[in-house]
Amino acid sequence: MTKKYNIAIVGATGAVGEQLRYLLAQSKIPYDKVRLLASSRSAGKELSVGDEKYTVEELTADSFEGIDIAFFSAGGDRSKEFAPKAVEAGAVVVDNTSAYRMDEDTPLIVPEVNQEAMDNHHGLIANPNCSTIQMVMALRPIEKAFGLKRVIVSTYQAVSGAGTRAVLEMENQFRDILSGDAIEEPKILPVAGDEKHYQMAFNVLAQIDKFQDNHYTFEEMKMTNETKKILGRPDLPVSATCVRVPVVKGHAESVYIEIDRDDVTIEDLMAVLDQADNVIVEDDVNQQVYPQPVNAVNRPETFVGRIRQDLDVKNGFHLWIVSDNLWKGAAYNSIEIAETLIARNLI
Amino acid sequence: MTKKYNIAIVGATGAVGEQLRYLLAQSKIPYDKVRLLASSRSAGKELSVGDEKYTVEELTADSFEGIDIAFFSAGGDRSKEFAPKAVEAGAVVVDNTSAYRMDEDTPLIVPEVNQEAMDNHHGLIANPNCSTIQMVMALRPIEKAFGLKRVIVSTYQAVSGAGTRAVLEMENQFRDILSGDAIEEPKILPVAGDEKHYQMAFNVLAQIDKFQDNHYTFEEMKMTNETKKILGRPDLPVSATCVRVPVVKGHAESVYIEIDRDDVTIEDLMAVLDQADNVIVEDDVNQQVYPQPVNAVNRPETFVGRIRQDLDVKNGFHLWIVSDNLWKGAAYNSIEIAETLIARNLI
Repeated sequence: MTKKYNIAIVGATGAVGEQLRYLLAQSKIPYDKVRLLASSRSAGKELSVGDEKYTVEELTADSFEGIDIAFFSAGGDRSKEFAPKAVEAGAVVVDNTSAYRMDEDTPLIVPEVNQEAMDNHHGLIANPNCSTIQMVMALRPIEKAFGLKRVIVSTYQAVSGAGTRAVLEMENQFRDILSGDAIEEPKILPVAGDEKHYQMAFNVLAQIDKFQDNHYTFEEMKMTNETKKILGRPDLPVSATCVRVPVVKGHAESVYIEIDRDDVTIEDLMAVLDQADNVIVEDDVNQQVYPQPVNAVNRPETFVGRIRQDLDVKNGFHLWIVSDNLWKGAAYNSIEIAETLIARNLI
Repeated sequence: MTKKYNIAIVGATGAVGEQLRYLLAQSKIPYDKVRLLASSRSAGKELSVGDEKYTVEELTADSFEGIDIAFFSAGGDRSKEFAPKAVEAGAVVVDNTSAYRMDEDTPLIVPEVNQEAMDNHHGLIANPNCSTIQMVMALRPIEKAFGLKRVIVSTYQAVSGAGTRAVLEMENQFRDILSGDAIEEPKILPVAGDEKHYQMAFNVLAQIDKFQDNHYTFEEMKMTNETKKILGRPDLPVSATCVRVPVVKGHAESVYIEIDRDDVTIEDLMAVLDQADNVIVEDDVNQQVYPQPVNAVNRPETFVGRIRQDLDVKNGFHLWIVSDNLWKGAAYNSIEIAETLIARNLI
């Protein structure tokens, strides 16, 4: 008989939690009990996983008794406090926050890219930042085939990455503006925990997460540091500019890369990407085919298009990479991590 | 007595035409008669310039009798057909289309950057592409002070650049989606004259203008070729990725540059940009200050912020450049060209 796993979802009521519940029911994970955890405010709510209804329970230190796999997606502070309790209780934690990503002992995993890094895990696996995941999905096959020297990325990130309340704030702004009304004082975007808040509807905001001393945002530094860690290339030059755009779901990225070889064509790049797991090349300029956020929603794959050779640098290429930030960027990648844990007998 | 000029505005009913009418009335141009020209469909409409009402006339070969300055903003085909007629009739044409921009005999002008290139004009001055103008506004002062080796740009372009009908299409899509309705079949965006049309609301479209044989769009090649021409640097490497975002007004650009010197700090860059005409540095990460499209609307300046040194390349810097695409990107720059023609006694 197949072993069945008891699952906990921490942050079950959030934007990622919703996708985790949906995707868990569709996954290859043979599960038995499910425990949906959230703050006391949400305790008592009824939420479904597949056809089953569950009552949301308050997250406490005792929530992980008997749990085999705990998905965490309730913010870094919650993960810092409760993930160690879950590991102590015997669960393997798949953490979707930034709390442990750069921790040396914690594998940072995109299964298609570096699943072997999970083999020596200590009970905690980190799910990378959404914008990092889709980028490395495209970069790894290119790196393997042709080498990789440098990455410069500018992002077009969806508002759902800032949570459900951020999406509602933006939608209300659109409604007000389209009715000719003044918008309400913004309170959430670009960064709920920062001091100033700005209009997101009909605007773009070049700030995701807080600013660091080097004038980059924390989101930009996540893309830099996580990409190096996942690819196992601490030396790889990666610089990012992260920008929020008025889109609900689906991050897009304009990525410039330099590869090692200077005899590679865009057809070579397309062929390599075409063969990569869960990467779909959408690139036919004669038919106006290129990746779009609205087409990537609720899709597990990463879409790559607009593949062009730089006009001046022979080993330079430009890519346009799009994926659902809540799926491959978060919930789907977390589910895949759990499936891979099982497949590799690591749990 | 100051000479007064007779003015024609071709495309007076369009998005740029509207701004031209508004800005002409506020300009330093001493004008007498004004002739508003458009297609036969719009002939007879009443439109204002300042406090005066004018009746729109149909554009014909005879429209330019007695005109001193003719602003063209009615598409490249109209400019190709009628701009030579205007020049023959004795007018100086300020053309806001791409028809003559790369013509060797036509100066391509951003007055703050290269107004001396107007001095040998042959009756026709080209106004550069919107996304090019704001970029060279920031690049020229940096180039003068520190040299410039390379430019890579990803744009976040407003829908008004595709015209008034495109804005209406996007706004209707937002209304439908926010009401839970299906959107109407898109007919205009991303490119009215291209075959396929896509949803713009809550989406980003990595296509502005048609695709070229090298897989770049015409908009991307405009940024490359026009930047080289305006800066007088045919050798300068410039590669662009041009993307439409659901914003009404205000283009933003994530620009990576490499400069000649490797001893320059971000404070040095800020100081040089601060002194440049019509450039405003908005860059205070401690106060979450950075350029935003909604703040740039109806402003003549170009705003620069998010100035960062590349994390790995000493002479590499990242900039975030924002400006009103209909003002500095089009109408305001055209009016400035006319003012400069007068100031330099070239008309």
